[in-house]
Amino acid sequence: MTAASGGRSGRRPGRSGTREAILDAARVRFAEVGFDRASIRSIATAAGVDPALVHHYFGTKQQLLTAALDIPADPAIIRNAILAAPDEVLGETVVRTVVGIWDSPIGVQAVAAFRSLLGGGEPALARTFLLEVALKDVRRRVDSPPGTGAERVVLAASQLIGVLITRKVLEVEPIASMTVDELAARVGPTVQRYLTGELP
Amino acid sequence: MTAASGGRSGRRPGRSGTREAILDAARVRFAEVGFDRASIRSIATAAGVDPALVHHYFGTKQQLLTAALDIPADPAIIRNAILAAPDEVLGETVVRTVVGIWDSPIGVQAVAAFRSLLGGGEPALARTFLLEVALKDVRRRVDSPPGTGAERVVLAASQLIGVLITRKVLEVEPIASMTVDELAARVGPTVQRYLTGELP
Repeated sequence: MTAASGGRSGRRPGRSGTREAILDAARVRFAEVGFDRASIRSIATAAGVDPALVHHYFGTKQQLLTAALDIPADPAIIRNAILAAPDEVLGETVVRTVVGIWDSPIGVQAVAAFRSLLGGGEPALARTFLLEVALKDVRRRVDSPPGTGAERVVLAASQLIGVLITRKVLEVEPIASMTVDELAARVGPTVQRYLTGELP
Repeated sequence: MTAASGGRSGRRPGRSGTREAILDAARVRFAEVGFDRASIRSIATAAGVDPALVHHYFGTKQQLLTAALDIPADPAIIRNAILAAPDEVLGETVVRTVVGIWDSPIGVQAVAAFRSLLGGGEPALARTFLLEVALKDVRRRVDSPPGTGAERVVLAASQLIGVLITRKVLEVEPIASMTVDELAARVGPTVQRYLTGELP
């Protein structure tokens, strides 16, 4: 089950009470003790359900966090596209894949989730999502020389987040109306340098 | 009078009612008809005061917008530092100046103002602030070849906004703890390329 289908089916009547109880418990536990120390078991206990039900509804702990943050896309889609790209077009591929999701129908909800995270929400959870779910495998891929991966992915994320804000939240021209090709040509080289270039 | 001193003195008893009435009227007019078409006179009329008082309290229309958005720093400080920098260190200077303000004592309020703009607020006003106040003179400076200035400053702004979000809102490491020198060395070349390099 993807996070997307999980999120949507949660609004059907019937099992929605249980699903919401699990999501509420997850948000509280993640915020209280952090992603690593919040076990599925402890979240299930707090929600008054069996741990197997948490797995059944949400899959992995990463997918549970994605659902708890109301993020509509399964980050694996982005991650797999990025991991499959050849080194020399990595920056451009990242820009195309990420902007493609934001511009798609589910992008509206993704932008809304991101705005609410920034506006009032839980920066610790957003940080965990970014590092433990969205960027983890990419970090390993670009960890060359060893030890630079964490810095590379966070620098790339900073540029992508800035494009998201200017294009989808503030809607500043000309970024708001650029085609994906135009954005990839302008911002791709930045992301490429962060992920694979020489850093000081 | 700077926007900073204006904002603070607005909280003193006495004239604070008038100042707040002017700021409220400005927010409404700017949102309704846009920055260009909202005259100081119409804002004064809506607030029930003389236009001269608006100028006395807030200075120019740009400064009134800055105060209406609760932005604590006078953007002229950043703008002047950037305009004075030699071409070949422009990107690095921009990063140092902008991050320097965010890391300073007034940066806390600047980050809060920015978060509230993103979270619920008025994207049209934020966009106007960015284009008409923060970036206007810089755009003229980097307009080479002619016609590219708008794109250059907005691309640079996208990178700076992303650094602000990762460093000050999400507090993602290693960006959160980098020194200004470290950030300037990593992000400066990106901003330099956007402002002065070849774009497709």
